[in-house]
Amino acid sequence: MKLLRYGSKGQEKPGMLDESGVLRDLSAHLRDITPHSLTPEGLAALRAIDPASLPEVPGTPRLGTPFTGLGKFICVGLNYSDHAAEAGMPIPKEPILFTKWNNSFAAPNDPVVLPRGANKGDWEVELGVVIGRKARYVSLDEALQCVAGYCVVNDVSEREYQLERGGTWDKGKGADTFGPVGPWLVTSDEVPDPQNLDMWLDLNGRRCQQGNTRTMIFGVAYLIHYISQFATLYPGDLISTGTPPGVGMGQKPPVYLRAGDRMRAGIRGLGEQQQEVFAFDEALLD
Amino acid sequence: MKLLRYGSKGQEKPGMLDESGVLRDLSAHLRDITPHSLTPEGLAALRAIDPASLPEVPGTPRLGTPFTGLGKFICVGLNYSDHAAEAGMPIPKEPILFTKWNNSFAAPNDPVVLPRGANKGDWEVELGVVIGRKARYVSLDEALQCVAGYCVVNDVSEREYQLERGGTWDKGKGADTFGPVGPWLVTSDEVPDPQNLDMWLDLNGRRCQQGNTRTMIFGVAYLIHYISQFATLYPGDLISTGTPPGVGMGQKPPVYLRAGDRMRAGIRGLGEQQQEVFAFDEALLD
Repeated sequence: MKLLRYGSKGQEKPGMLDESGVLRDLSAHLRDITPHSLTPEGLAALRAIDPASLPEVPGTPRLGTPFTGLGKFICVGLNYSDHAAEAGMPIPKEPILFTKWNNSFAAPNDPVVLPRGANKGDWEVELGVVIGRKARYVSLDEALQCVAGYCVVNDVSEREYQLERGGTWDKGKGADTFGPVGPWLVTSDEVPDPQNLDMWLDLNGRRCQQGNTRTMIFGVAYLIHYISQFATLYPGDLISTGTPPGVGMGQKPPVYLRAGDRMRAGIRGLGEQQQEVFAFDEALLD
Repeated sequence: MKLLRYGSKGQEKPGMLDESGVLRDLSAHLRDITPHSLTPEGLAALRAIDPASLPEVPGTPRLGTPFTGLGKFICVGLNYSDHAAEAGMPIPKEPILFTKWNNSFAAPNDPVVLPRGANKGDWEVELGVVIGRKARYVSLDEALQCVAGYCVVNDVSEREYQLERGGTWDKGKGADTFGPVGPWLVTSDEVPDPQNLDMWLDLNGRRCQQGNTRTMIFGVAYLIHYISQFATLYPGDLISTGTPPGVGMGQKPPVYLRAGDRMRAGIRGLGEQQQEVFAFDEALLD
């Protein structure tokens, strides 16, 4: 299934994309796509619905985040060996974890708003993994059973805040709008091999990032297994698994986001998202 | 007001402590203490209730986290100059921020459960600041108006995970039970000067940490102002503002938590919390 939320901001309704790509409304069956909807029981209930019985949604409405009730948003750094090289960082011995604050969780095609005075905004297309089952000290073998589904994430970053303002990376990762997710959540049964997915990101129509999840240093199963030793993962948690080469910081000379730029990020089978970049404007937020 | 939640885990009811220290039940007025309860409007509605009209709660029930619906849990590192010295770290030029994952948010007196194989568990009594009003680029002058209230936090840490496992500190800060908060949330009107609060932490009856919030490097107002430039703060967000000297890592030789240890942490006017430390035991979680 491809689960999504559609409608104006704060008024989103649950929906799904059927096999023909038609957007259908799920409101008669559930109020919203919540962490409970992502559990094995919740997904089974949704699978039992005949998509043809659901009303078609006319037009092309705005899409919201594909689920609500985000628990935590854990990210993995330098998880593609060639991206680590372009960032000038050594290949990590074990996964590097950092956090995107929940206020960064954003709809897939809404504006990306740079913080005031930000000069080093950057892009990172990533495979997002949405948890659907509690994972605590989960074995490598059982780790993928904890996945509800996958989605495209743009781990938007401000490199000066991330790397030059002291402390951890979190400062440059958690701005409002810095975590576009979607367009939809594709349930794991439709992603038989998360380690063989082409991914790309275009800036203003120019291909900047191109990669495949097969070149991850630590694969999805290992990451879930690993993180579950530091914290329990719950339905509604989101792991963003790192980015392939081609970010702005890695260009020679570096290229950073400016107002008016357009990003378009996609992963094969998971759809595409696109954002326009804006200078800070309070009116674009909330 | 001193707001709290009481009852068995997952079944907590809203309550308050009246001026005589009697626990009274708020269930007739609200279902739970949520981020909405912490807004100016929510607090005004609670203030309009005559405490004497509320039923007394008999006995000494378990206390839960003093509010539910935690947004993000942002922590400030090395924010007391003498703690920075004991940690062997330079005094930061600007606040160091890191994140405790939401699964660490814990009731004030519940067990602290060390992760499997953890050898370097440590304690950190801290002043917790609970946000009650949206803060985005908030000025220093207006920052304290965004505070719903204050509470005691024990920023429990695993130093090996924090400092020796690569990447950011977050890995050693977000284990389940690593963020006891409470016993209650004291609304800001009862804390006229958050920069003059005595604080302490005893381990097994021995005073380990003793300090006062007046020795913070960056005070509460500055921290809110500062963080609000990197991320919008919302009602239900929690900032833990750093710890004074006396943590285990700073003892000579270092002292780390072991099963059976008892921590008792308090801040003048905000109450005390205490935890027993346990080795990992699945049965103690969830």
